[in-house]
Amino acid sequence: MRELTVRLGERSYPIYIGRGLLGSRELYAELVPGSQLMVVTNTTVEKLYLDKLKTALPGGRIAVHVLPDGEKYKTLASFENLITELLRNKFDRGCCLIALGGGVIGDLTGFAAACYQRGIRFLQVPTTLLAQVDSSVGGKTAVNHPLGKNMIGAFHQPCGVIADVDALSTLPDRELSAGLAEVIKYGLIRDKEFFVWLENNMAALVTRDPAALEEAVERSCRNKAEVVAADEREGGLRAILNLGHTFGHALETGLNYELLLHGEAVAIGMLMAADMSRRLGWLGDDDVARIRALLQLAELPVRFPGQARGLDMRELMSVDKKVRGGRLNLVLLKTIGEAVISRDFEESALEETLAFFSGGGVS
Amino acid sequence: MRELTVRLGERSYPIYIGRGLLGSRELYAELVPGSQLMVVTNTTVEKLYLDKLKTALPGGRIAVHVLPDGEKYKTLASFENLITELLRNKFDRGCCLIALGGGVIGDLTGFAAACYQRGIRFLQVPTTLLAQVDSSVGGKTAVNHPLGKNMIGAFHQPCGVIADVDALSTLPDRELSAGLAEVIKYGLIRDKEFFVWLENNMAALVTRDPAALEEAVERSCRNKAEVVAADEREGGLRAILNLGHTFGHALETGLNYELLLHGEAVAIGMLMAADMSRRLGWLGDDDVARIRALLQLAELPVRFPGQARGLDMRELMSVDKKVRGGRLNLVLLKTIGEAVISRDFEESALEETLAFFSGGGVS
Repeated sequence: MRELTVRLGERSYPIYIGRGLLGSRELYAELVPGSQLMVVTNTTVEKLYLDKLKTALPGGRIAVHVLPDGEKYKTLASFENLITELLRNKFDRGCCLIALGGGVIGDLTGFAAACYQRGIRFLQVPTTLLAQVDSSVGGKTAVNHPLGKNMIGAFHQPCGVIADVDALSTLPDRELSAGLAEVIKYGLIRDKEFFVWLENNMAALVTRDPAALEEAVERSCRNKAEVVAADEREGGLRAILNLGHTFGHALETGLNYELLLHGEAVAIGMLMAADMSRRLGWLGDDDVARIRALLQLAELPVRFPGQARGLDMRELMSVDKKVRGGRLNLVLLKTIGEAVISRDFEESALEETLAFFSGGGVS
Repeated sequence: MRELTVRLGERSYPIYIGRGLLGSRELYAELVPGSQLMVVTNTTVEKLYLDKLKTALPGGRIAVHVLPDGEKYKTLASFENLITELLRNKFDRGCCLIALGGGVIGDLTGFAAACYQRGIRFLQVPTTLLAQVDSSVGGKTAVNHPLGKNMIGAFHQPCGVIADVDALSTLPDRELSAGLAEVIKYGLIRDKEFFVWLENNMAALVTRDPAALEEAVERSCRNKAEVVAADEREGGLRAILNLGHTFGHALETGLNYELLLHGEAVAIGMLMAADMSRRLGWLGDDDVARIRALLQLAELPVRFPGQARGLDMRELMSVDKKVRGGRLNLVLLKTIGEAVISRDFEESALEETLAFFSGGGVS
């Protein structure tokens, strides 16, 4: 088992990464000693892992709240149902939520924990690669609004993260790849050495070699934890974690959160950011080719699906949270391993990138 | 104009108290210099003060969101409507909300500010006495749930508070009295001198003497600011501000938030806490009589309305946010001017108080 810490003063918490952790009594006894626990999960994960987790929990009152599976349930209505369940169970401020599932479950549960009685504890038990390397770490919680993704949310840190790489064995191939998009992101924004490691080990990751997965999850979490510790509430640096996300969110919104998984949209978005960075003279053609090749090794899409060709991407990007004073803040790449946040970019480069990808993205 | 500061490190903010402040350009220029502003108010306050405030705002995009008047609109549905308005207006993270109204508007607007894009700025412009002395200060924001008051919320500090005592001239008598309940509370929990001042000046307050109101608002805010600075997130001390609230919330919930104003329920609740403190041997009969007399001078109710006689108060109190591990935390009085938080009280004293008040509250 590997352990690292997200350093945030009195809100610091541990991340445990390893095999078989989902059933570890010791970890739950340490992290959720409280007497009122509610496990939040979805119908898919329930069948696979709920019993294993429940058996390992310490005694006390244990409730379970199960949602349907899918991003379209990451809504204020689901949030309200969860709050109602907590109230029906008469759970008090000392209770603790356990998010068992992917990013949707983690974000929704975290937001409910942030708001229930103005804030209770919650534990992240991510079962997807995306959640293990990204959404479960750093305290960003949210639900979607029909007019924009993650528009209603809070910063609320979990009391711990338990990332069991064995849980990735049941992940559908597409979701594994979607998680790998965020893994690749860390290499791109601040860890060139990790990017090269990924080029050499992507085959092992795609075939789910547990040792390779453990290494990738740890290095990803370490990168994320360092960025979050330096800038918890996204005053500056933390925004580099959004590489590809402004493009990706616009795509997801335009496609009504269907067709593309979040990580797939981010993969396309990262390539768009690379393409735009090339047009600004920062990346070379060879850099963009390397990035595209690594995404393809991870079995990720690198161009728009046909249904996205007619979208007004510029308009869709204008409601992004990274907009300030009407101007877009974009995360771009100075080189592989170094991201920059730019709001003074040449608009023509953005337009060319949008036109290129809207036109099919093949040069 | 009087000025004081809520000292919370980088989240510190000023409270301005005085006459005619609602139309002060200088204050808005200082507190809300941003370019995107949304004023949130209700239909009653809109007619009285919206134009005055809007005229004084600095330039930029100004939107207005008007709700119906009443506690029953302090819901997640109203919260969602407000978020939708912000998104329709394409307001970004740099925008600022202005809460113009009483506690319902302040709590709802503050909660929306806490959650919109994970947190934006907001300014409190309270127009009721209750909001000026209590809800606008300290960063507690929330909406109600059918199963409990303020169960969904966040700690989110405003960027400033502008308390214009002239706005109290249009307040209905009952609402003025409801605000005086919270004013009396500060005397009871930590400021004996203020309690005596109130005994001597209650007549001037009830007839809305501006100088007396200014003094009462300032001393109330000063007490609250000191408590909040010592314990922002209610880890301990801050709970004394809930004197009368556990009883009061139970009454409000039992009456479906109708019939009694929040301050009226708190007045009855404070007298219940005093009565219970007497049964525990802390207060004398004369202390309880003084408290009852001051509440009556403030034209506040001191017994249950007839419709509340059959309520299961013990059950209604069990969902209160002050419950931990199944045990009630009650705020009681050691003496006038000194509150204590107790969870080890004799249950029989509580039962006697509940029986006494349920039976009519007349000895």
